[in-house]
Formats: sequence, structure tokens, C-alpha cells
Amino acid sequence: MSEQQATDHDVAYQGAPGAYSEEAAERLCGPALRLLPCRRLADVFDAVIGHQARQGVVPVENTLAGTVPGAYELLLSRDTHVVGETRVRIDHVLIGPRGMQAQDVRRVLSHPVALDQCGDFLRARPEMQPVPAFDTAGAVEMVMRENDGATAAIASRRAAHVYGAVVLAEHLQDHPENWTRFLLIAPGEAAASPPAGAKTLLAFDLAHRPGALVAALQPLAAGRVNLTKIESRPITGRPFEYRFIVELTSEDAGTLQAVVAEMRTQVSWLKVLGTWPGAPQRGGSWHND
Amino acid sequence: MSEQQATDHDVAYQGAPGAYSEEAAERLCGPALRLLPCRRLADVFDAVIGHQARQGVVPVENTLAGTVPGAYELLLSRDTHVVGETRVRIDHVLIGPRGMQAQDVRRVLSHPVALDQCGDFLRARPEMQPVPAFDTAGAVEMVMRENDGATAAIASRRAAHVYGAVVLAEHLQDHPENWTRFLLIAPGEAAASPPAGAKTLLAFDLAHRPGALVAALQPLAAGRVNLTKIESRPITGRPFEYRFIVELTSEDAGTLQAVVAEMRTQVSWLKVLGTWPGAPQRGGSWHND
Repeated sequence: MSEQQATDHDVAYQGAPGAYSEEAAERLCGPALRLLPCRRLADVFDAVIGHQARQGVVPVENTLAGTVPGAYELLLSRDTHVVGETRVRIDHVLIGPRGMQAQDVRRVLSHPVALDQCGDFLRARPEMQPVPAFDTAGAVEMVMRENDGATAAIASRRAAHVYGAVVLAEHLQDHPENWTRFLLIAPGEAAASPPAGAKTLLAFDLAHRPGALVAALQPLAAGRVNLTKIESRPITGRPFEYRFIVELTSEDAGTLQAVVAEMRTQVSWLKVLGTWPGAPQRGGSWHND
Repeated sequence: MSEQQATDHDVAYQGAPGAYSEEAAERLCGPALRLLPCRRLADVFDAVIGHQARQGVVPVENTLAGTVPGAYELLLSRDTHVVGETRVRIDHVLIGPRGMQAQDVRRVLSHPVALDQCGDFLRARPEMQPVPAFDTAGAVEMVMRENDGATAAIASRRAAHVYGAVVLAEHLQDHPENWTRFLLIAPGEAAASPPAGAKTLLAFDLAHRPGALVAALQPLAAGRVNLTKIESRPITGRPFEYRFIVELTSEDAGTLQAVVAEMRTQVSWLKVLGTWPGAPQRGGSWHND
């Protein structure tokens, strides 16, 4: 991660230029950003806390792979809060240097999750050996730098463009509906009571008593607030003890605030991780409203 | 993955010999097993469905990294069911060929999650470049095969032993309480109503109606059944639509069966993913009993 001054960067993200996270950053904050690429997800949080970047982009959930490992744990442990969200369609392509053909490829570099999502494509081509890399766009950078005539990368079309590479095959993922949801984070804690906003992310612990989870969720049903995500999470350092991560959506900010206040009386600990003007998600299949 | 006959293998697992999953397999099924190492998690399910192995071992949750990407999605989509569980302490060590010293190391190979868990150790040693690999034990195998005098691996002490390597540094993870929970899977569907057993894993979808989640969980509170895990999951092919994964624990099998039957009347779809005689987990911090 760069050690440059705070004013030098608008948004930190994980990966190399051309990463899917870079696309998320542009969607959230507009083009012509001063971006700070980071190698690890933890580095994105460190850059925001240390004011090397004003905000950070964090992938939290993919429709095929599920929750991103460690993402909510970092949100819980670092002094940041969520201020926005977006989602990006993940459409993997095979990328190589100019002049390379798909039949030349013997090694394919990419992030292990991306290699996994292209399992059918790779199994049908046993001559292509999958090789793990830290990130998709970084794999393209490495393939272009080494240019060995036999190594390609799996990444976004955007990454091919960034590195002046060519697309050798497209739409590689097993399932076409492949989306990742990204959160935008800013330094400091969210207000204890959420300000106006359609969506809020919060964490809570439960006391040891009968019906505790039902009691904690009852205010949502009464207030007709949507529950768009719930997860119990292992707590670091307390093996197999759990905390809940919950995301709430409401048309009315006042209702949301009242419901969170009511929940607070039902749980042993509650922290608002962020509130933002998120539009209700299209296609949501379940509600608690 | 090997193409050998069904009778040749007792348990399939992901990784190379010496993997943490191999230790889980021995804990679940005893030593002297005929084990089938697989490269991808999906290959473990395929080996069980295709009867190359009688059972499979699947990591589902790590106390530091959270849910294993894709694990519950595979449980939902493949014709297998859960018959047992165990947990393994993850204690990473630095491993190299005999004669190597820690100060010789310039490259460190391991699974990206393991590299991430040893972030403090690696940041304090900038001369050691982290390099991603598909699995921890496979990284040791590669380091021993290449034996280049400068490359080491991060994996278990067991992996060092399997490959005749030496331990250059120990207890590398940032946080000492690092555990992974593994499920044991068998081919075919679980019985729709769970047989006798202390633990059951199930998935359900909710109808679009007010208070649907609270209604679905109400039978647990009434039956004094513990809820030891809940997660909403994106559904493959229906972006940002969600399904619930829930794990229930009870001292009494009859109560568990009655509660699941009652839940079934409150949801639009429910599938029992497995029931097993799991001991109530020590140290659980929250209950719905």
C-alpha cells in the first residue's frame, strides 16, 4: 500500500488497477477519482483509518460464493462505518498479451474464487492449468509483464483494457448471474442512532434467555421494516460464540430509528455500523415487513 | 481428483496430504483411513456423489475468517447430507526444507486466508514476499519439491511432518483462537423429518408476508430448541434473493422433530440438510431456548 498523503486519494480498494472493486469505486463516487489500490482487504480499512484515503470500497457478498471471508469481521473491528453500497456484475474473460490465441494457453492465473467460478470452462480445457493469484487484475498485470506465450489470466474486460491486453474468450463463469455487492466505508463510528437513510447495517449480541432472537426481531415486524440480511458470526477470540449482523431497509427513516431503539432494549449489545440512502433492492425475495 | 474405485476411499477432503481437512477426517472417522485428496471443494462433493469416497469432509466456518465461501451453496445444490461435525484448531507454522533458516526465507507460499491470518508476522518481515497457493499442505509439497533455498510455506505442523520438512517458526497467526468447523457429508438426501440426533442443519425460504422470519423462528422459542447458526444466503441465479441456513441443537430428538415440523408450516420451502448426534457446543454465547 502506498504511503502517500491523505489528500492524494479519494478511495482505497483491494486489488490492482482494473479490479472489479475499482469499478465499484467509480460507481459509488464517480469517475476521475484518485484511487489507492491495496493488496489486502485489511489494508483498505487501514488506509481509511490512517487517512491515506477519504473512503474505502469493500466487497461483502457474491451471489455465487456467498459472504466475503473477513469482510464483516473487519467492519466490526475497525473504526469505520458504512456510507453507501453498490453492486457490480462479475463477467470473467480470458486475457492474454496481443498475438496470443486461446489454444496457446497452458496456465491461467486468477483469484481462487474467480478460478472456481469458471470451473466448467477450465474442466473442459485440461491443458490449461489454474494458478492462484491474490487478485484478478493483478493476475493480468503479471501475465502482461512476464509475456511467456503460454500464460493467461481470468479477470474483467476492464482489466484487459487497463493493461492493453486482448480478450481470448468471454463469459467464462459457470453461472451468468454473478454479482458482487460492495460497501463504501468512511472513518470513525456511525451515529448510535441512525440518521435519515433507507438502509442500516448493525451488529448485536444476545443475552442467554429463551426466545432472545425472536424478541430482538419482533420490533421489525411491528414497525414493518425489511430485514434484508441476517448472519450469525463467530466472534474473534471467543470460539463458537456468535454475534449477529443484520441489515434493515425501510421507506421511512423515523421508523427505522424507532425500530433500532426498540431492538436496543432487547439485546445485550448493539452497534450501528452505518446508515445510507440505499434504494430498496430490486428482486428481494423475502421480507420481514 | 483420482478416478479410482468407490471401495478405495473412505473420506474425500480438499487439499493435499497434511491439510487441516485431513486432520478433521481422522477426528471424525478414526485413523488409518483411505483418504482421497481433492483440489476443489466442489470435487469433494463430486467424489461423494460419484461414490469414489463413502463420505466427505467440508470446512464451513472459521472463527477469524467467517463462513467458507461456497460451502453452504454446495450443500444446498448437491445431493448430499450432513452426518457429523468436528472442529480443528488452526495453528500455522513456517515450513522449509531441512537446512533452511528463517532468515533465508524470501517467499512464503500458502492459501490466501492463511497468509491473511499471519498478517502481523509477515508485515514485520517485509523481506518475505507472500505468494498465494490453492491450499496450505500443497504449498509445503511445492516448497519441498522446488527446494530453492529461499521459499518456505505456511501450513500445519502435521504438513511439515508429512513432507519431511522442518518448522522454522511457530504460532504465526495474529490471533491464537483460530478454529475451523468441518462437516462430514454422505451421499443422498437427509430424511425429511430428522431422525434422533442432537443437531440438525436446515434451509428454508420465506413467503412475502409481515413478520415471516419471526413466525418461522417462533417454534424454536416455544420448544426451547437452541439456534446455533443463522445465515441468509444469496440464491444462485436469483441475485439478491435470499434463503436461510439454520442450525438447531436440542437435548431431545423428539422435540427437534416437532419443532422442524412446526417450522415447515410457517415457511414456503424447507429442506433438512442433515441431522447428527452433535454434542451441544461448549462456549456458545447465545441461545434461543
